[in-house]
Amino acid sequence: MSKKPLILITNDDSISAPGIRTLIEVMSEIGEVVVVAPDSPQSAMGHAITINNTLHLNKISADDATIAEYSCSGTPVDCVKMAVNEILKQKPDLCVSGINHGSNSSINVIYSGTMSAAVEAGIEGIPAIGFSLLDYNWNADFSQIKPFVKKIAQEVLKNGLPDGTVLNVNFPKLKTDEIKGIKICRQAKAMWQEKFDKRVTPFGKEYYWLTGEFINQDKGEDTDEWALANDYISIVPVQFDLTAHHAIQTLNTWEL
Amino acid sequence: MSKKPLILITNDDSISAPGIRTLIEVMSEIGEVVVVAPDSPQSAMGHAITINNTLHLNKISADDATIAEYSCSGTPVDCVKMAVNEILKQKPDLCVSGINHGSNSSINVIYSGTMSAAVEAGIEGIPAIGFSLLDYNWNADFSQIKPFVKKIAQEVLKNGLPDGTVLNVNFPKLKTDEIKGIKICRQAKAMWQEKFDKRVTPFGKEYYWLTGEFINQDKGEDTDEWALANDYISIVPVQFDLTAHHAIQTLNTWEL
Repeated sequence: MSKKPLILITNDDSISAPGIRTLIEVMSEIGEVVVVAPDSPQSAMGHAITINNTLHLNKISADDATIAEYSCSGTPVDCVKMAVNEILKQKPDLCVSGINHGSNSSINVIYSGTMSAAVEAGIEGIPAIGFSLLDYNWNADFSQIKPFVKKIAQEVLKNGLPDGTVLNVNFPKLKTDEIKGIKICRQAKAMWQEKFDKRVTPFGKEYYWLTGEFINQDKGEDTDEWALANDYISIVPVQFDLTAHHAIQTLNTWEL
Repeated sequence: MSKKPLILITNDDSISAPGIRTLIEVMSEIGEVVVVAPDSPQSAMGHAITINNTLHLNKISADDATIAEYSCSGTPVDCVKMAVNEILKQKPDLCVSGINHGSNSSINVIYSGTMSAAVEAGIEGIPAIGFSLLDYNWNADFSQIKPFVKKIAQEVLKNGLPDGTVLNVNFPKLKTDEIKGIKICRQAKAMWQEKFDKRVTPFGKEYYWLTGEFINQDKGEDTDEWALANDYISIVPVQFDLTAHHAIQTLNTWEL
């Protein structure tokens, strides 16, 4: 029997989130697992890294535990860098991030700590997947999607991923047998319409909470939003070459 | 004479950084300027937004000042959202971010608060440019690049930008007459090789500083790294549709 693949697990909801527990459970069935995740919630941290502050790392599993778990004071991207450079003796065969409590479809990918951890792994040459469930509740039912999480991870381990890409996987909030299947999609063109909730401190000073409404401007049936709204799991291949190659020709006509 | 364009200025090095002062000076020559920038350094914050904490906004310019300036407790992306939704009465004609103290070429675009602010403006439909100078010093000489900053901003105001793109502009650390010109480029394929500097607190606990070495794996002469190394200003059109469109066909051959 061949050696088990080494799987790095992280997330942005923190090491104590139920979503990462489900991911650990599923990945333990197919590989040797190491967990390095933030010690506090890091949602919406995007691709932030910690350069103006110190980083702390704590092993939180017992020395004889079957799964090594570490908490890190940094962002999800810091966790991946720390795992690869300070903890793991070899490059992992797969990095999985999540399962996020809430959607990372469409433009959310750009704000998402979950996906940024996966992207960071991709930059370091590690096949990577971010998983998210469309349920923001802390007690969301992650058990329904376990068979799909396992299948997708196994396919990535078997096939690898196209160069320079990672996967953004989002699950509709449905029971296992209500899910119609998996669609490979493009990121829907959408945005958040912000609403700042202005309040006043007990000391008379104004402050704000950032809230907003998700606006999908994209009616395409090949998008992640369409797939999710129609009871499919969406998989978007995400790249970290941000060059708008199609725009280069246009810009070359400018008088610069 | 037509109305002056409305220009929103932000950055990630904070409102007190010399780089943003140069940008304010140049933009005041071509438009009506409003500044909304972080109240403390936010380098490497990527596309982080503040959702688990409150946001504070302070007007720091006098009521009769010609330029309205606000400091915000959040990230560069928060600053753009706050400006568009809470401060400005109309959508700006242009958003400029920077001038960053240090490079945002190649993969740095993904970690950059400067560029994430520009990308956020782009998502909101505002033509946007991130400017960076390859000099990390607080006292870098920004005066050398002023004519180019002005010219590029004027071109964007004149032509607009291709749909779904913003510009990532990097300047070599050279005198004005040493700069050979401007190249439209693609993002070089490169990465950071991390080195964690492990230290011990006065109380005996280990902690880390994230450091690293920039590794350019890309020998292409159409990249931003090549342009900068050869005394050109690099302009990369950056997109926020992260879909790896070329990978969709491959993934559709999988047994999912």
